[in-house]
Amino acid sequence: MNMQFLKTFVISLFLVVFISGCGDNKEELNQQIVESKTYKWKLVTSWPKNFPGLGMAPEKFAEYVNEMSGGRLTVQVYGAGELVPGFEVFDAVSQGTAQMGHSGSYYWKGKIPSSPLFGAIPFGMTATELNAWLHYGGGLELWQEMYKPFGIIPMAGGNSGAQFAGWFKKEIQSMDDLKGLKMRIPGLAGEVLQRAGAVPVTLTGGEIYSSLQSGAIDGTEWVGPYNDLAFGFYQAATYYYSSIWHEPGTGLEFLINEKALKELPKDLQKIVEVAARAVNESTLDEYNARNNAALQTLVEKHNVQMRKLPPEVISELKEITAQVMAEQAANDEGFAKVWASYSAFHDSIKSYHDLTLKEYFMHR
Amino acid sequence: MNMQFLKTFVISLFLVVFISGCGDNKEELNQQIVESKTYKWKLVTSWPKNFPGLGMAPEKFAEYVNEMSGGRLTVQVYGAGELVPGFEVFDAVSQGTAQMGHSGSYYWKGKIPSSPLFGAIPFGMTATELNAWLHYGGGLELWQEMYKPFGIIPMAGGNSGAQFAGWFKKEIQSMDDLKGLKMRIPGLAGEVLQRAGAVPVTLTGGEIYSSLQSGAIDGTEWVGPYNDLAFGFYQAATYYYSSIWHEPGTGLEFLINEKALKELPKDLQKIVEVAARAVNESTLDEYNARNNAALQTLVEKHNVQMRKLPPEVISELKEITAQVMAEQAANDEGFAKVWASYSAFHDSIKSYHDLTLKEYFMHR
Repeated sequence: MNMQFLKTFVISLFLVVFISGCGDNKEELNQQIVESKTYKWKLVTSWPKNFPGLGMAPEKFAEYVNEMSGGRLTVQVYGAGELVPGFEVFDAVSQGTAQMGHSGSYYWKGKIPSSPLFGAIPFGMTATELNAWLHYGGGLELWQEMYKPFGIIPMAGGNSGAQFAGWFKKEIQSMDDLKGLKMRIPGLAGEVLQRAGAVPVTLTGGEIYSSLQSGAIDGTEWVGPYNDLAFGFYQAATYYYSSIWHEPGTGLEFLINEKALKELPKDLQKIVEVAARAVNESTLDEYNARNNAALQTLVEKHNVQMRKLPPEVISELKEITAQVMAEQAANDEGFAKVWASYSAFHDSIKSYHDLTLKEYFMHR
Repeated sequence: MNMQFLKTFVISLFLVVFISGCGDNKEELNQQIVESKTYKWKLVTSWPKNFPGLGMAPEKFAEYVNEMSGGRLTVQVYGAGELVPGFEVFDAVSQGTAQMGHSGSYYWKGKIPSSPLFGAIPFGMTATELNAWLHYGGGLELWQEMYKPFGIIPMAGGNSGAQFAGWFKKEIQSMDDLKGLKMRIPGLAGEVLQRAGAVPVTLTGGEIYSSLQSGAIDGTEWVGPYNDLAFGFYQAATYYYSSIWHEPGTGLEFLINEKALKELPKDLQKIVEVAARAVNESTLDEYNARNNAALQTLVEKHNVQMRKLPPEVISELKEITAQVMAEQAANDEGFAKVWASYSAFHDSIKSYHDLTLKEYFMHR
């Protein structure tokens, strides 16, 4: 029994007694008793507690929900490993160990091959394009369909924007420089790099720095300047590649246990949905606002050498990506279904943005 | 406080209530009654009722608030002219005729010269850049400061994305073609066009089509393909210019009467804030998703002739814009203050997006 429960119990008891005393208007007061029931949710994440950007999205969500519900629904956020390990967030929410999770969809591609399409794929949509597809192009409905067998309702949970190609100990001047390169890179991009001759390595956030430092890996991607500065990669690798290819706009996810959500009264269900939506934009805003200052610090204070991938490397990776996507679609019905929707939408919005944003970026 | 004490407290309370019956000791109950007090708000807008995109933003806001508050705060949306004319939204909210409004900040530049900076200016920030500045770059705080003397709290209220240069009866092939051109265009862009020799005209949405049809104006901008298709401009002008210059990302606004907001309990205040934030993203998602399909309809079904402004026209307009901004800053202290923040943030995020999104648009 906790304090919140007792407070609710006391108020409910008071009302029950009051009703028995007064006799009328019982319905309205019963309604009050139902509505004053409180809920306590656990939210497990794949990030260190309070990690800038990624880790602050669930914290902000919890703050919004707690305040909007007047304390009727309180959400407690757990960092990776506090309740369950970072890569077990999906299972924990599916099994009801936690009512909610915050993570990246591509971590579950072993379970659900289509899952990276809801987060980030090489040469895929940018942050705002992904949001448009999810919310007005049928993407969210497909996402819900794919997660339904696991009793999980997914919602967009922020976007870190375009991710930099990453940190390397040696320069990448041609495709030959990728041969044998040990690089930390997750999702379908790892598959692409492997076919280019590299050796993709899977490491959790906490393991990357020491592996780069020791030479166990030759390079790593992480997020972008804001997060990469905090991780101190500039102390372990000389070259920072700004080129965008592997995650052009990385969508994060809220995972919600379906049964837990349905047990909430309608108003609290809506509070969960709208809070997630508000956090989705807020996280992108934060990355967009903070990345450039961090980049300046990296270059001016830490003498990081900025580089771009050669055009022929980018076009080669793009070709390999097309093959990987076609194979994924051939091997999994779910992937094929989501990919058909994703790629049609991407073609359309790409031609729109070529006419608008791209042109504007050229002449402003 | 220990469990035994709480148990005793609960029993005591039960007895106190039981003994006093309906008479007194109503404090806890009063608290419940206060929380169940309902509020009815009016929201006036500058758009036709239920107008696609622009007009649906306040409708969605009302839906979110009504559902999240369990009906404790209900918001009734009025189209332009239903309660007050579209251009009197600001005054209506300031005076408390309505608790809220939904409009575009540049409509108030006569009253508050800096107001266009929170919505859209020629050669200014894109939608996501504006959001980043407002929410993580100090923009919102400045906006609140500028509206405070009018008793209004502003919040971001959606973004229609990059707006097309507009519809013209004749082609624009050089700066000479702008001389004497009568064009419907609001905000600071009108000022820029005037210096280029054109004649900017202010018309409400409902007046544009007939003016273009009759030849009272030679051209007009409105929003983008999704809204422009609905207005049927293709029946009155042959050439549609996709070039982005006058409103690279048009932010809309929620206006909230400060006194009305402060009268709400804390949880409802937060519901208003978070609902606005969610609508802010949702509106941009909708425009991004629907503009391209509308553009295809315009070109394929209605044989619209697509054009781009010549590069020398764009660079000339850009130069004039720089002069106009400098003069605005010299003439108004508020403008100068906001402009300093806006332009520093813009420079920074522009160099970041040149390195990321622009590069990506070039090679994807």
